[in-house]
Amino acid sequence: MPIIKLDSNSGVPFYEQIYDAVKSEIVAGALKHGEKLPSKRCLATRLQCSLNTVQGAYSQLTAEGYINPRSRSGYYISKIDGMLNLEKSEEDEEAESSQDPAYRYDLTHHGIDSNAFPFSVWRRLTKESINEYDMDLHKTGESQGYSGLRSSISRYLRQSRGVKCSPQQIIISSGTEMLVQLLIQLFGEKSIYALEDPGYEKLNLIFKSNRSVYKAMPLDSEGILPQALRESGAHIAFTTPSHQFPTGTIMPINRRINLLQWAGESPERYIVEDDYDSEFKYGGMPVPSLHSLDTGDSTIYAGSFSKCLTPSIRISYMVLPLKLMEPYYSKLSFYVCPASLIEQKALCRFIDEGHFERHLNRMRNIYKKKRECLISAVRSEIPDAVISGANAGLHVLLTVRTRKTESEIVSAAAAKGVRIYGLSRFFSPERQEVYDARDRAAPGAPVSLLLGFASVDAADIPEAVRALRSACGR
Amino acid sequence: MPIIKLDSNSGVPFYEQIYDAVKSEIVAGALKHGEKLPSKRCLATRLQCSLNTVQGAYSQLTAEGYINPRSRSGYYISKIDGMLNLEKSEEDEEAESSQDPAYRYDLTHHGIDSNAFPFSVWRRLTKESINEYDMDLHKTGESQGYSGLRSSISRYLRQSRGVKCSPQQIIISSGTEMLVQLLIQLFGEKSIYALEDPGYEKLNLIFKSNRSVYKAMPLDSEGILPQALRESGAHIAFTTPSHQFPTGTIMPINRRINLLQWAGESPERYIVEDDYDSEFKYGGMPVPSLHSLDTGDSTIYAGSFSKCLTPSIRISYMVLPLKLMEPYYSKLSFYVCPASLIEQKALCRFIDEGHFERHLNRMRNIYKKKRECLISAVRSEIPDAVISGANAGLHVLLTVRTRKTESEIVSAAAAKGVRIYGLSRFFSPERQEVYDARDRAAPGAPVSLLLGFASVDAADIPEAVRALRSACGR
Repeated sequence: MPIIKLDSNSGVPFYEQIYDAVKSEIVAGALKHGEKLPSKRCLATRLQCSLNTVQGAYSQLTAEGYINPRSRSGYYISKIDGMLNLEKSEEDEEAESSQDPAYRYDLTHHGIDSNAFPFSVWRRLTKESINEYDMDLHKTGESQGYSGLRSSISRYLRQSRGVKCSPQQIIISSGTEMLVQLLIQLFGEKSIYALEDPGYEKLNLIFKSNRSVYKAMPLDSEGILPQALRESGAHIAFTTPSHQFPTGTIMPINRRINLLQWAGESPERYIVEDDYDSEFKYGGMPVPSLHSLDTGDSTIYAGSFSKCLTPSIRISYMVLPLKLMEPYYSKLSFYVCPASLIEQKALCRFIDEGHFERHLNRMRNIYKKKRECLISAVRSEIPDAVISGANAGLHVLLTVRTRKTESEIVSAAAAKGVRIYGLSRFFSPERQEVYDARDRAAPGAPVSLLLGFASVDAADIPEAVRALRSACGR
Repeated sequence: MPIIKLDSNSGVPFYEQIYDAVKSEIVAGALKHGEKLPSKRCLATRLQCSLNTVQGAYSQLTAEGYINPRSRSGYYISKIDGMLNLEKSEEDEEAESSQDPAYRYDLTHHGIDSNAFPFSVWRRLTKESINEYDMDLHKTGESQGYSGLRSSISRYLRQSRGVKCSPQQIIISSGTEMLVQLLIQLFGEKSIYALEDPGYEKLNLIFKSNRSVYKAMPLDSEGILPQALRESGAHIAFTTPSHQFPTGTIMPINRRINLLQWAGESPERYIVEDDYDSEFKYGGMPVPSLHSLDTGDSTIYAGSFSKCLTPSIRISYMVLPLKLMEPYYSKLSFYVCPASLIEQKALCRFIDEGHFERHLNRMRNIYKKKRECLISAVRSEIPDAVISGANAGLHVLLTVRTRKTESEIVSAAAAKGVRIYGLSRFFSPERQEVYDARDRAAPGAPVSLLLGFASVDAADIPEAVRALRSACGR
């Protein structure tokens, strides 16, 4: 414990002096992981200040993750190793990576380039939306979200994705996870869900946490397999046909039609089309959305603004089929939309005044250049690597033949300042075991990595790819 | 169908001309409930405009509730009788009541007086929070919500409610319903929940929708009964001890201690203390929060800002016991807080700069005056009525002896422009049947009504109470 002497003349509040002193010792390594701090009462007595003062300092240190309270035991120094609080989720780790000196080149697949987001416009529109004469602000929000935004989304979807729907079919929420929870409650306990394998890793966590039955569906080169769906007995299939997450496959039209045929075989079957980054396409013929091809009213179209605006704005939406509207009204309309009404109003103006379209166009150009830069750097540095899933979205899949395992490469890349994720984490646990066994049995099997190009600066891409090449043992 | 002639010189877009024409006919009653509109294709052909134009008009009419699409059938005129869309929830009805000419005096229990909310301050703080140099805005938010706001809430709770916790124990969300869903996932499928009966009517909807087992607990004059809890086998008890919803009982200290004893008898037991409107007390000794009395780390303290700010700002929070933090981290930290980060930052400043405290003081004065006005009007107009639950919160319970049933009174009040809710709707279905049977058997049994005084103008209170007296048949 550092020797702290409180200075009443410095103008700095006592709790802040204590906080600063403890924090410096932790960061300098003088206070080590697992060491116990004095009890608050002891320290207050020692420093001759109030208990509240010490409480304030300990609270702030805890909030920032430097120390951890343990029940009935006291405060202990946390493990600090470039990532605060190891028990944080991948999202929190991701959140800190941009301030994280250990990662100079962030090739994470779920990053975006938020420097180009027009914050000044957003600020103005938000200010205009906080209008005390707007009676909406004096009431609890609508269950499905602000009707003006639903109208704007309805128009936008019709123009951009051929998704034809009434604003009344749209449910707005705060992120995909919230929408999935609504669907779980809408469909009831007997429904079996099908997820792409590999797929978005949070989906199985949501189903597990909500005690739903789900099955992992293998993919081929065109995406999820309708025959596997039939055999699984699943009712609701979650797909990412515009840019399969994480492989990047764009589902061709024949497979989409086959998938819709699967759905049409039973009135209990639905497809959730998660169009998470369909705004960004790079050549090739655009393939019509599943929703626009569906004549059976069996597709739930879901999207989000998080990837096209800035990650802190988490407004998501789904379009329910007409035949699910009555079940929604009778079962779920007691819920109030969790997205901020003011934020929804600002977004509505953002879309209606044309800023959204302009912003998307700007981002497409920026991402297109970064993508080209990445692909050309890879072709130059690791010419025998296979790039796939590059026709859309904000990451490509890189497959390399190497003596190293995926985790060795990811660690070596991290040591060189490059943050990347391997493909294996997105497989179901059963498939992961298969891959691990294969890695142990036959080193030199191809390793697949997700290379995101959205966050990294274009100028850093060549260096990042060189570091990656070296991490692969080339 | 009105004869519409599109005017290309008027400067008004065609879809808007169609929308206006149809809406006027509906409002005038010329287009009646249940009538079918022409198909979009027919109308487009007839008016010689594009299908998109008609689609835009029909979409807007649908979004506003004037017409309803029916699957594979067409568009039908909705029922318009002062409340659009009868299938909306009570919340949506409530939301429209302030614009609803049929209700001149809004005595609803969940209203607030949002005219006094300092929108200009909120606007400024929000603007300041939209700062592109704030790296938080470029990342996905924290699972538990913005750490700065959790620190502010932690300090506020300590000062105002004696709730001592670290900011790390606080989970921020968008409304109580979201917090309850997190708890349901945290506790797992074998947990049995206990709800107050009568109680907050949405709770049983949430448990039903999430397939949880719940039991309705009878109350006595002090609140929920620990012995009934023991007999029920429940693990998690939801209570509103500061101002029982809806009866208004303040749980005295002995009962709080008994409840904590119940919780202490098993490590699986927890109490959720929903302190939903504890900011507003009117005399009497303040009773310490359950949380502050609990030495067993078994209380989950929950609160919300919706009732003290404006209903469209739906930020809620709960304080988890230390022993639940590790289960939270391992099971639920993959979820991202659904509340808007910008709104959380604005709220943090609102609290830290002292606006929140000033606002609460202002509202306490305003509500105190309205409450006195209401009580005095009731004592004058219906002197034999019993007023209870008046020592805290934003509604009182009024019990009258009358020949009329509760639903007759509520309808008669509505006819006179007064919106009120009776107590019966907050009972479990089993108890409601008992009361209905009793009403049929013995007319003249006392009727209990919730009288909210937050929304109504003070000057209108005497007239509202006179109308209520008349509705009671006096």
